[in-house]
Amino acid sequence: MAEEVKLFGMWASPFSRRVELALKLKGIPYEYIEEDLSNKSPLLLKYNPIHKKVPVLVHNEKPVTESLVIVEYLDETWKNNPILPQDPYERAKARFWAKFIDKKLLPTVSKLGHMAGKEKEEAIEEAQQQLKIMEDELKGMQFFAGQRIGYLDIAANVLIWFRIVGEFIGETILTAEKFPFIWEWIEKLMEIDVVKECLIPKERYQDLMQLNRNASKHASN
Amino acid sequence: MAEEVKLFGMWASPFSRRVELALKLKGIPYEYIEEDLSNKSPLLLKYNPIHKKVPVLVHNEKPVTESLVIVEYLDETWKNNPILPQDPYERAKARFWAKFIDKKLLPTVSKLGHMAGKEKEEAIEEAQQQLKIMEDELKGMQFFAGQRIGYLDIAANVLIWFRIVGEFIGETILTAEKFPFIWEWIEKLMEIDVVKECLIPKERYQDLMQLNRNASKHASN
Repeated sequence: MAEEVKLFGMWASPFSRRVELALKLKGIPYEYIEEDLSNKSPLLLKYNPIHKKVPVLVHNEKPVTESLVIVEYLDETWKNNPILPQDPYERAKARFWAKFIDKKLLPTVSKLGHMAGKEKEEAIEEAQQQLKIMEDELKGMQFFAGQRIGYLDIAANVLIWFRIVGEFIGETILTAEKFPFIWEWIEKLMEIDVVKECLIPKERYQDLMQLNRNASKHASN
Repeated sequence: MAEEVKLFGMWASPFSRRVELALKLKGIPYEYIEEDLSNKSPLLLKYNPIHKKVPVLVHNEKPVTESLVIVEYLDETWKNNPILPQDPYERAKARFWAKFIDKKLLPTVSKLGHMAGKEKEEAIEEAQQQLKIMEDELKGMQFFAGQRIGYLDIAANVLIWFRIVGEFIGETILTAEKFPFIWEWIEKLMEIDVVKECLIPKERYQDLMQLNRNASKHASN
């Protein structure tokens, strides 16, 4: 049977980008459907009735949701170009760090855009401490996965997005001086062709943040 | 080489209980070390320096943390009595629901103990909606995993703990009338010998909640 793979995504979502990156690294052909999150398609609501979010992968009509669950599904279904480490202990470590990013680092950074004053300073301090932990993990490695890009690099692609957000809000959370290993890793990652194809376009994203900022100012007037 | 498996846990932690249940289901011999979380042991801090939490599994001196990461590690390292489904799509579904429990249901129920008035009512309403989603998933199944206990049943063991918490705070969040399938599933789960061995003792847990409530009242006087 011919494999039918569709990805419902959104250009500004680092989670969609994770799945696209995994698909490209494994060389799986797929159809990409861009969602307008202000006007979600009936198909998105049908395939992800619980969270109503992107990304959703639909493989032969069967939906899979949650970016990291999708990445593991792809890796288990298409065995070529493995993304997760083969050793169970290395797999556990990769899953641990991916959880660390999603449970700790992401919530801290996500709220920064809406903060001010002391609260913002504290959140930046917290993010720095968490980045320091990631920095120590990367020390002496080419990629999080070792010599070549893997599961944790895909999960950690959100750090590229942090850099864009940080620049926009005028905070130097993630700089080459403070986190040289993470910085170098991002630069190296961005040289890989399939990663280049999956980057969130910086200017367009910052325009979107500006629009949101203006809208919330308008709403609070 | 003889396998050395240690589990650092705490009797009142539903996350520790997940790991114990997985170890027992797979028949892996292990040494259990009870942690006093008000006075954490140097070994716990050594093995889980980032989160400083239980459970921690130490397999031949190598630590693994995060309950669901540990369960997957056990399943990948000891191949007998598989816990995760073999089919990649069923695995993805089990992982999705486990994430749903940890990201949605748990945070909602955890905060209930500290709430009052309208805020509490809203949180109960939210928990009920989330339980309804789980209820629909269980409909017509013996266990979440199908005919026999598996990964998602281990993850969902926290629902037993909800029942204990609900009784204590005097809220009938999880009743046989409202959620007959979940109720029946809990009853069936609690009949399994290895599950019985891993239950949080209800009276002792409610005594602990009473102590915490008294302490926080005392602190706010």
